[in-house]
Amino acid sequence: MVEPATDTKTAAKVVPLLKDELDIVIPTIRNLDFLEMWRPFFEPYHLIIVQDGDPSRTIKVPEGFDYELYNRNDINKILGPKASCISFKDSACRCFGYMVSKKKYIFTIDDDCFVAKDPSGKAINALEQHIKNILSPSTPFFFNTLYDPYRDGADFVRGYPFSLREGVPTAVSHGLWLNIPDYDAPTQLVKPLERNTRYVDAVLTIPKGTLFPMCGMNLCFDRDLIGPAMYFGLMGDGQPIGRYDDMWAGWCTKVICDHLGLGVKTGLPYIYHSKASNPFVNLKKEYKGIFWQEEIIPFFQAATLSKDCTTVQKCYIELSKQVKEKLGKVDPYFDKLADAMVTWIEAWDELNPSGASAKATNGKA
Amino acid sequence: MVEPATDTKTAAKVVPLLKDELDIVIPTIRNLDFLEMWRPFFEPYHLIIVQDGDPSRTIKVPEGFDYELYNRNDINKILGPKASCISFKDSACRCFGYMVSKKKYIFTIDDDCFVAKDPSGKAINALEQHIKNILSPSTPFFFNTLYDPYRDGADFVRGYPFSLREGVPTAVSHGLWLNIPDYDAPTQLVKPLERNTRYVDAVLTIPKGTLFPMCGMNLCFDRDLIGPAMYFGLMGDGQPIGRYDDMWAGWCTKVICDHLGLGVKTGLPYIYHSKASNPFVNLKKEYKGIFWQEEIIPFFQAATLSKDCTTVQKCYIELSKQVKEKLGKVDPYFDKLADAMVTWIEAWDELNPSGASAKATNGKA
Repeated sequence: MVEPATDTKTAAKVVPLLKDELDIVIPTIRNLDFLEMWRPFFEPYHLIIVQDGDPSRTIKVPEGFDYELYNRNDINKILGPKASCISFKDSACRCFGYMVSKKKYIFTIDDDCFVAKDPSGKAINALEQHIKNILSPSTPFFFNTLYDPYRDGADFVRGYPFSLREGVPTAVSHGLWLNIPDYDAPTQLVKPLERNTRYVDAVLTIPKGTLFPMCGMNLCFDRDLIGPAMYFGLMGDGQPIGRYDDMWAGWCTKVICDHLGLGVKTGLPYIYHSKASNPFVNLKKEYKGIFWQEEIIPFFQAATLSKDCTTVQKCYIELSKQVKEKLGKVDPYFDKLADAMVTWIEAWDELNPSGASAKATNGKA
Repeated sequence: MVEPATDTKTAAKVVPLLKDELDIVIPTIRNLDFLEMWRPFFEPYHLIIVQDGDPSRTIKVPEGFDYELYNRNDINKILGPKASCISFKDSACRCFGYMVSKKKYIFTIDDDCFVAKDPSGKAINALEQHIKNILSPSTPFFFNTLYDPYRDGADFVRGYPFSLREGVPTAVSHGLWLNIPDYDAPTQLVKPLERNTRYVDAVLTIPKGTLFPMCGMNLCFDRDLIGPAMYFGLMGDGQPIGRYDDMWAGWCTKVICDHLGLGVKTGLPYIYHSKASNPFVNLKKEYKGIFWQEEIIPFFQAATLSKDCTTVQKCYIELSKQVKEKLGKVDPYFDKLADAMVTWIEAWDELNPSGASAKATNGKA
């Protein structure tokens, strides 16, 4: 059995890296008691809470945290008609938080995720590891068999081209989960008791040209580098599908990172995922996705972007056209999604009018 | 500090998997005392020892091991003029052992590699883990964030296409090294004291289209599936380069595995690599390779094989033509190497006249 860390108050006093340059985005429908366990690690940071579902409910945030909270009414007010691109009654609404943030980095975490322990029993400061991942380069063009060559005690192995050893900027750090693994409904149904107890002490770059299933539970990214691609799609209320929000963002993000020469890392840090969601409910949300992904993934594997696509926004708009053209045939849902992708970029640019000045500000990092 | 396992005699009695279907190939210039530590794990298997260098020397093999030994005179006698494709005074000569084996699987290990310990202190049966890797499928078409989905306690994560969950046959299992990492001469010179102490409890498939630096120190492969691609090139005596034998084999093997839909895994098992080779000597051997790899790797990354290439031999001959055409410009050495690649295949086919019947025999596995 794996157990979460239960006494993080005694965690060594942490130096909060990038304190003024990172927002923590949390989508939720309940009181955020889970933050108590994260207090030593998260308290120095600013939180953006996106309230999922009924806006008349009041969500309690433990004292001492610095936060802003948006419910559906706020989203509608801020985005007007463009609010249609933000999902309702689904944690996909979290991407609204990415859009309103003014920081360079985003860390997003689910409210059923707790502090995990490393094999020595020490509470894992997940955010610190994400920041390490994202501040060191990625190596998408050639595989390093000793994993992340920039970690202490590791390097590039014999046969690794020297011209590639500078790496490329890291846009995404994808963290993993101990205890409840991120399985789909069929696998949950077949293996209800499976728990992830294996602590794999590795971070690695996902090679260029390789897609991966990006989970939004424990995820960090550089908003300046890839933010506009982190759209979590149309899920939940009124949509034919759920639980593909992060997958969609992951596919789009990876194709755009590959095109722009940016890196995506996966592996450490682990969080402790406490409760499995209901597999029957999940199956209902997922079942169309289970069919569709058989066509979506080859689509993304084959997708190429033109040389003119020099910004994330341009890449994303180009991708939305291809989605409409190629996936529109699979289901009319993808027509709607392609339109929402465009709306998302319009809304992003409206709220972030000066990408250039934002970058200049963040340049002091 | 990492330490090797020093008392493997007490290792739990092992069931020797694939006992009659696997040969252990060891290139050496010295007495094989290192086998004492491996006795509980290797004794049930047949060894093929390829003696590197002076054939008049007698190499002692500890009692109780079942082996055949080939020195240079034997190689010349068996291959005649085709012996020119087998390197002399270089551990690249090991590939002769792959050629004379009649088994389906090969495990090859260097004679300065000892038994490593896992984090619990238990001696690692490297061969057993290789066999597990190679008998379970690979997943080259999509990345699984929980690593090898076929291991106990792991599976495919949410968003992994169901159509890809059967995987493909695994052709290669690439193991790693604790203690002395496999660094090139410049890295050895810069970091003389670096030791690999990180035990990463993972096995993963190297994605399709991604090359990797294959190290021959601790390597297992399926001879029937990929044997003829495991040519370790022209290195050592009379050649302008050394220490690129396994790299060459790795690049060719990966391109061919990708073409034929076969998998390559890396990660577990670890062996304990005891002594760093002399970085000054290594630099002399490597320095041309350090330049050349900057052109070789883009060459292999861009290499495609025609649809007619339906066997490893056909793929390899096709690749040899491309080597001659494209890398011949880099240095005349590659002309010679391309010719040796053809000679290698001719010799392989001569010694293995009936690929078909061999497969039928091994089909009983």
